[in-house]
Amino acid sequence: MMLDEAGFVLTEEERDSIEVADFGLSELEQTGLEVVVYVNTQRVCAKEIVMFPGQTCPEHRHPPFDGTPGKEETFRCRRGLVYLYLEGPPTKPPSCWPAKADRGAYTVWHEVVLRPGEQRLVPPNTLHWFQAGPDGAIVSEFSTQSRDDLDVFTDPDIARTTVVTSSWVSAGIEGEDPAAAAHR
Amino acid sequence: MMLDEAGFVLTEEERDSIEVADFGLSELEQTGLEVVVYVNTQRVCAKEIVMFPGQTCPEHRHPPFDGTPGKEETFRCRRGLVYLYLEGPPTKPPSCWPAKADRGAYTVWHEVVLRPGEQRLVPPNTLHWFQAGPDGAIVSEFSTQSRDDLDVFTDPDIARTTVVTSSWVSAGIEGEDPAAAAHR
Repeated sequence: MMLDEAGFVLTEEERDSIEVADFGLSELEQTGLEVVVYVNTQRVCAKEIVMFPGQTCPEHRHPPFDGTPGKEETFRCRRGLVYLYLEGPPTKPPSCWPAKADRGAYTVWHEVVLRPGEQRLVPPNTLHWFQAGPDGAIVSEFSTQSRDDLDVFTDPDIARTTVVTSSWVSAGIEGEDPAAAAHR
Repeated sequence: MMLDEAGFVLTEEERDSIEVADFGLSELEQTGLEVVVYVNTQRVCAKEIVMFPGQTCPEHRHPPFDGTPGKEETFRCRRGLVYLYLEGPPTKPPSCWPAKADRGAYTVWHEVVLRPGEQRLVPPNTLHWFQAGPDGAIVSEFSTQSRDDLDVFTDPDIARTTVVTSSWVSAGIEGEDPAAAAHR
């Protein structure tokens, strides 16, 4: 699979627990993420995120909880290209236009392009979304604790807790046509 | 250099700011680290650590500070082999015996071997040290904030703040014989 080709070595257990998130939208090719969680303690979280070509992680923010300001994330592009959108002066025209943008599911349009070796910090409680370029992407996420259940999405149709975690899906994304395979 | 070969892409700025720590001992081939710091905020830190064959990061702990329990670290081996030593039942005989072990500079001997894809969490304020295997190693460190100035080393000769950060050193470690080159 894509992580192998890029030289990211996983244990067997990690391979079997790759998280495929479709955010309850059932349109994984367009909207979703494939995630390997290396560590997620009360203080530190590190993940590898794999994205299909043009796949979008939909707009959301990480609100304060348990007396913390909320999740702070740094996204570091390792392979491919990522268009990251944040609060700030909108980029016109933007490089990306997700399907549901016409329906108000995306409200922040300040575009940051991340190429391999480039990274960006997203402060807590800040709206953001991102889309992979035409060859897909591998993105490392370095952050404080992940509490996906607390994420607040702009699109009211989204339920982040709808997460598919199964070996048939991780097997699927090792195939030639990962998006299609994951939909079998 | 080793990170290039392993597929870790750095920006020009990161290349120029590779931190070469000899801990004030001036025996970099034996005792030291080469470090790329991706991010180090008040909450999150992520680094890539490169180690020469047999190079040792000497025994230390990360004490509590500013109301926090101290730095929590997870070491993830990416390439090569790392012998990590922690508090716990001593491994007999240990795979590693650093030069100064005879002089009391190493007191914890619970050995954990990390191969590519394997990782270990080191709790705050816990004594630990590690040595690369015969081919060197690349290790990702995911942690809370790094405050190197607060580290407590077992070896009284060590001053962690003696850090060489210069482009001639980072240029040096791109050569064929990295340890020697860094000593030019």
